Amino acid sequence: MGQSNMAFGLAARDATGVLSPFSFPLRAKGDDDITLKILYCGICHSDLSTIKNEWRNAIYPVVPGHEIVGVITEAGRNVQKFRVGDKAGVGYFISSCLSCDDCKQDSENYCPQLVPTFNSSHPDGTPTYGGFSNKLVVNEHFAVRIPTKLPVDKVAPLLCAGIAVYNPLKEHGLSEPGKHLGVVGLGGLGHLAVKFSKAFGVKVTVISTSPDKEKEATEKLGADSFIVSRDPEQMKAAMGTMDGILDTIAADHSLMPLFALLKTRGKLIALGGMTKPTEISLFPIMAGGKIMAGSIIGGVKGTQDMLSFAEEHNITAEVEVIGMDDVNTAMERLQKGDVRFRFVIDVANTIRLSYKIQNLGEQNNVV
Amino acid sequence: MGQSNMAFGLAARDATGVLSPFSFPLRAKGDDDITLKILYCGICHSDLSTIKNEWRNAIYPVVPGHEIVGVITEAGRNVQKFRVGDKAGVGYFISSCLSCDDCKQDSENYCPQLVPTFNSSHPDGTPTYGGFSNKLVVNEHFAVRIPTKLPVDKVAPLLCAGIAVYNPLKEHGLSEPGKHLGVVGLGGLGHLAVKFSKAFGVKVTVISTSPDKEKEATEKLGADSFIVSRDPEQMKAAMGTMDGILDTIAADHSLMPLFALLKTRGKLIALGGMTKPTEISLFPIMAGGKIMAGSIIGGVKGTQDMLSFAEEHNITAEVEVIGMDDVNTAMERLQKGDVRFRFVIDVANTIRLSYKIQNLGEQNNVV
Repeated sequence: MGQSNMAFGLAARDATGVLSPFSFPLRAKGDDDITLKILYCGICHSDLSTIKNEWRNAIYPVVPGHEIVGVITEAGRNVQKFRVGDKAGVGYFISSCLSCDDCKQDSENYCPQLVPTFNSSHPDGTPTYGGFSNKLVVNEHFAVRIPTKLPVDKVAPLLCAGIAVYNPLKEHGLSEPGKHLGVVGLGGLGHLAVKFSKAFGVKVTVISTSPDKEKEATEKLGADSFIVSRDPEQMKAAMGTMDGILDTIAADHSLMPLFALLKTRGKLIALGGMTKPTEISLFPIMAGGKIMAGSIIGGVKGTQDMLSFAEEHNITAEVEVIGMDDVNTAMERLQKGDVRFRFVIDVANTIRLSYKIQNLGEQNNVV
Repeated sequence: MGQSNMAFGLAARDATGVLSPFSFPLRAKGDDDITLKILYCGICHSDLSTIKNEWRNAIYPVVPGHEIVGVITEAGRNVQKFRVGDKAGVGYFISSCLSCDDCKQDSENYCPQLVPTFNSSHPDGTPTYGGFSNKLVVNEHFAVRIPTKLPVDKVAPLLCAGIAVYNPLKEHGLSEPGKHLGVVGLGGLGHLAVKFSKAFGVKVTVISTSPDKEKEATEKLGADSFIVSRDPEQMKAAMGTMDGILDTIAADHSLMPLFALLKTRGKLIALGGMTKPTEISLFPIMAGGKIMAGSIIGGVKGTQDMLSFAEEHNITAEVEVIGMDDVNTAMERLQKGDVRFRFVIDVANTIRLSYKIQNLGEQNNVV
């Protein structure tokens, strides 16, 4: 029999970023590959940046989505990590060379031949399409096991936002109990940084431009304190108190007020990726032996470790589950920061309906 | 009898930076203090920046100099580390609180109450005057033992330039054999970075704007390779090859071409301290998990360790020894980068003459 080799989802066709139905052939399946029926897919801010071509790298049509949880419908003969029926997750990337120094050190995320889950192409030239769709074929190495004890919809954002904060905290020694961490921005990444850090036994201060986030930060998420970054008195009072800061903000801002909050040898971890260059002054950084590090997501092993830790400590994302028909509206709300804290698309339960409405006559390809 | 409580040396009186004879009272001597007859003092670029008030922090009159080697002429009753007649060295600072976290971790260099050797003041308000003078009183904690096997004039620059490069190499894991280090700028700091790194067993590439430094770098100092930073082809060929870079350049320059030379997780150590802010782009830093760290000098223990390592591996600075009368000319040459690689003043043998010429009638204060 075999299953259909066609998949469908939502694609942006130009820089308006408007998503509309799109059919595409799945890539050829090999002996090391699994095929996922996608259940849930989180919406990352980089989905929005890519479909609107903010980074000038969009290859349209773009089917976004790299916080994917699915159930395995097919498994190649060499597959060892999974069985058909297992749940599996896929994050930011679906391939890497597996032979460079980075790959050998479980840092596939820094492999020069990394293939992102969408807006890229496989080594054979086939475009990659992300999780705003019904199916995905991936080499099992790049998929992770999904903890059975956690609700799958709330796990999806861990595949990108979760590992993006967990990995640098571990790598830079900021997960040791008793450390004091600043978290700048309380969005998808920020709220998970608070949850992971509290589970590590770290003291957490949320730093935000929005005073109205204080209650959420401290009462809902368990942060120890809250600083309004626009309040010079509050910023001054916190100077020199933090071992590390995770900066999750993509909007333009100065890093120097953040460096001032760090202790000697404190570490500012840049995760937000401002698109414009930003100015730094070296003297204040030198005078405290301070450190800035960039970081993007993590490797496959790190992602699996993060999921195990999340299961053990019952950590999941705070999500607003939406249907495929709600995605364009969700993107508009995300642009305005109107989400607490991550949109997750209920792909499997809503994708048929969306397609039937569009009446594209491709229902026979639907699994 | 007792010795004179007056000292003299050369001071700048204004932002012209011109140095002229100057007498000053030594600070009161306590039981933990040693008095040094200054033998040699290196000239650091920061001496020049301070006397010309480039950093807008000069407190005139300024007696510069913080690469000091002297012989002990008096020792307080509690002094344990030294005896009269021993040689001792003093670097960038002559006091700190000794009770903060930084001091307790042998990082006095980051103590918030650090008292620089010159252009500052003691806790009692007395100004601090540096090594372009005949005497210095210092708490023994802030002095280091000088290796007996090495020539003292060539050791003087180790007290600032030496520890400034040795400390971050050790602290950031860049002293491990087999690592590949880039050294930007082949001046006082840069040439010592090459010498220490070769002794560590590290591969060293010198990065310079001046093609004419290649021979010195590779043949004289033993660097493994040399890159002209203005040559795009050479820079491109070296992309992604370095574990770390020591950037010793104080003049304005972009850091981004240097980040490009680093491997994944490579570290750019900023030592030069550009006065103007510099622009950085976060994406290339994030995409390689790259790190930037500021560093200034090191603690007392680290400085002593560095001197032991230098003695063991016969590492000293390449110096041009000058007399006190030559200091203004040396400063002009330093401004133009015309020095290979560090000026050192032969203070003890030339200071009387300088004073007699000025005919200030203070000869009776001369030791």
